[in-house]
Amino acid sequence: MVETIQWTDSGVVMIDQTRLPREQQFVTCRTYLEVADAIKTMVIRGAPAIGVAAAMGVALGVQEGADFDTVCKTLAATRPTAVNLFWAIKRMRDLWFSLQGAAREEIVQSMISEAQKIRIEDIAICQAIGRNGEPLVPDGKTVLTHCNAGALATAGYGTALGVIRAAVSAGKKIDVFADETRPFLQGARLTAWELQQDGIATTVITDNMAGHFLHSGRIGCVVVGADRIAANGDVANKIGTYSVAVLAKENGIPFYVAAPVSTFDLTLASGDSIPIEERSPDEVTHVFGVPVAPEAIAAANPAFDVTPARYVTAIICERGVARPPYEESLRKLAQAC
Amino acid sequence: MVETIQWTDSGVVMIDQTRLPREQQFVTCRTYLEVADAIKTMVIRGAPAIGVAAAMGVALGVQEGADFDTVCKTLAATRPTAVNLFWAIKRMRDLWFSLQGAAREEIVQSMISEAQKIRIEDIAICQAIGRNGEPLVPDGKTVLTHCNAGALATAGYGTALGVIRAAVSAGKKIDVFADETRPFLQGARLTAWELQQDGIATTVITDNMAGHFLHSGRIGCVVVGADRIAANGDVANKIGTYSVAVLAKENGIPFYVAAPVSTFDLTLASGDSIPIEERSPDEVTHVFGVPVAPEAIAAANPAFDVTPARYVTAIICERGVARPPYEESLRKLAQAC
Repeated sequence: MVETIQWTDSGVVMIDQTRLPREQQFVTCRTYLEVADAIKTMVIRGAPAIGVAAAMGVALGVQEGADFDTVCKTLAATRPTAVNLFWAIKRMRDLWFSLQGAAREEIVQSMISEAQKIRIEDIAICQAIGRNGEPLVPDGKTVLTHCNAGALATAGYGTALGVIRAAVSAGKKIDVFADETRPFLQGARLTAWELQQDGIATTVITDNMAGHFLHSGRIGCVVVGADRIAANGDVANKIGTYSVAVLAKENGIPFYVAAPVSTFDLTLASGDSIPIEERSPDEVTHVFGVPVAPEAIAAANPAFDVTPARYVTAIICERGVARPPYEESLRKLAQAC
Repeated sequence: MVETIQWTDSGVVMIDQTRLPREQQFVTCRTYLEVADAIKTMVIRGAPAIGVAAAMGVALGVQEGADFDTVCKTLAATRPTAVNLFWAIKRMRDLWFSLQGAAREEIVQSMISEAQKIRIEDIAICQAIGRNGEPLVPDGKTVLTHCNAGALATAGYGTALGVIRAAVSAGKKIDVFADETRPFLQGARLTAWELQQDGIATTVITDNMAGHFLHSGRIGCVVVGADRIAANGDVANKIGTYSVAVLAKENGIPFYVAAPVSTFDLTLASGDSIPIEERSPDEVTHVFGVPVAPEAIAAANPAFDVTPARYVTAIICERGVARPPYEESLRKLAQAC
């Protein structure tokens, strides 16, 4: 498996997720502005991976000697929905303040170490999510997932795909249905590619087939990632997640969300106040540059939706499994450790 | 508006719906085998349009002097789900039997006239569907539709889009959200193009956005077409229709099906026995020939799904509006006239 993101002496190296699976091309960001651009253009995407990228971006900015506030503000302005971005910037900012008075070289080295630590921690967190979620996956059935909450959405292993990987490692006989996840096709391009590399049987379906298969009896559970989870358990995730959750509930199939504690935003009472990014209509009207709709037609492109907590069977994080009522269970897990 | 299908002296002329909206290219089918191929490859699609094409295909076959049973069997084997195909072939077959003993020239002319009559009737039927459905469309809201149940899916005017056109003609201030409808993109390519030509404000969305917008409060109703309607009101229609219906019900939004009586299949007690066509996985893994998934990945491609009658608010046909219980209301409308 290729590395999603790494700190190197020549800069932050990321696999270009806009080109997968057709090309495996790596991008080296040498400045914090290049990292900001990579996040904005989705060269790197996925809430935990964006967090790691932002942390490395802050470290690069400090190394460059750029104005610290400008660095943080620029990186924070890249994408609005995934809270891990703000979580990572805050963690880097807290360290930076604690280092005031130290020698410049020491500050730079500490910031770089912290960014690298966030990356390493993220892999361990995903593995813990996998361990915690694995028992929930029914043996002998198909797991449906939406978008990519895999190694490519994190520093490695994945959240939703971490649960799937752990279930396979535990010897469960499962296969995966991957929603293609228009418009950016993270499911068809990234999830299918990751799981194919791991030898996990995967079938790509268009997003509008998910309901049909949830109704068919072959799906044992749904597992997805998250970009932000409010105190009441409402989950912001890739557009289409809400639909899958409603269809799972309607058919009596458990719907699981797998995400690190850094995705919790307990400052928000509900998902109603989660900002939903609206991206360019071109992503809807074009596929790899090929127009799929008439010229000058309007298109909407909300990149995320909010799934009300009542559709969420459980939320799996590195510290355990939260069940309703989420006000209590999420707070308990957030305060643990 | 271009004509979907026409009988001409040089053959059956269809606009090539695989190339719209990028190219407006017409195909002339000179033999019944070419018509069969056009139906199979979706040069022409949409249940009522397929019915017209099959009728014209039978007429061509008779004109060619081909074996009548072979002509009918070949055309019937093109696509399994839309019952209008079998309805049209049966109507042509019944006429053919009634003409036995007549001069060959008379038989040929009568068969051609009947196929042309089916086409003309279809336009009038769509206009009646529009008149019957128009009062159901809430003013000042957005209508969501899936796939293309428009002029291109019929001989003209459309079923679901006929209802929308009639609502606009009645002066209602509505706009349309068109699900792009992967994998074949009938919504993005055909519905958006048709409505744009009519000057009806249309926004293309990916299929996985439908739930988000049904939850948002801006959608006043959903109107879709149908490929086959069982006696109990279960509706087979383009893959993804079931999902939209569940999401509409979950959000208290009326879900209407607009289809001619020729789409009713009252020989089937429920939708469980409607055959669902499985098409090539290439349609899912490629968009206009461009690969969107890793090589050699599996993909499913059921072209239709079945929406249980409990999600269907009403079925609009040329003879009126059927409401639950559908066993009674559909039978009554089928026997009317």
